[in-house]
Amino acid sequence: MTDLDSDPGRSFDADVFSRMCASRGVLQHVTGRWSALIVVALLENNAPMRFAAIRRRVDGISDRMLSQTLGQIEREGIVVRTVHSTIPPHVEYGLTALGQKIAEPLTALIGIIESELPHVLAAQKAFDDADERRS
Amino acid sequence: MTDLDSDPGRSFDADVFSRMCASRGVLQHVTGRWSALIVVALLENNAPMRFAAIRRRVDGISDRMLSQTLGQIEREGIVVRTVHSTIPPHVEYGLTALGQKIAEPLTALIGIIESELPHVLAAQKAFDDADERRS
Repeated sequence: MTDLDSDPGRSFDADVFSRMCASRGVLQHVTGRWSALIVVALLENNAPMRFAAIRRRVDGISDRMLSQTLGQIEREGIVVRTVHSTIPPHVEYGLTALGQKIAEPLTALIGIIESELPHVLAAQKAFDDADERRS
Repeated sequence: MTDLDSDPGRSFDADVFSRMCASRGVLQHVTGRWSALIVVALLENNAPMRFAAIRRRVDGISDRMLSQTLGQIEREGIVVRTVHSTIPPHVEYGLTALGQKIAEPLTALIGIIESELPHVLAAQKAFDDADERRS
């Protein structure tokens, strides 16, 4: 704390493994039920998207959850909401520079999960079969 | 489905954006409240860990949540539980090859969140201040 107090420009050491560190909450928001999908959809689209376009891409999300999740990641500086003053107004959501940085490992993670899914399903089956034999 | 039926060895196309695809559930488990931290702790440790060592590293996790989360990611083939037949038996949890693949982008994500935390906190403050001015 002394370093931080004496030099406010110095970055402090965030530690997601500490329950008191705010970074843990950010990790939870970013990897939440819907935010990872929204952020990766925006990265893949490579351009801002309208609400309805995100909703179509993220199959199964409700208007309420999409609006709530967008609000949360906008607050964290991950997406930016732009209102174009057309009639009717045209609203778009895009990734910030921070949002792009965060979207990259999430996109990699999703790619791995998709390509490894057959192995995961086989592991689940083997585990459940072994479990059945034990009981 | 025709391709899949005619050639069972062929991998199918998983799509996390489809609500029906099992990959979405795997993404949710892997990025769940505790699993990301456990998987990254195991990767950083670079060797299997005992239950108590994981619990110490993942500050704030209860025995019950750790045991439940380890069971879930063991079922998905991400960690492997090894019982060494010493007296008393010595149990360790380590990443599988799949677990290592998954842990890498999660480690990158956590690194970004930790190093960008000051920007996230500044964005939250700016958002809340603007919100207050509007109300």
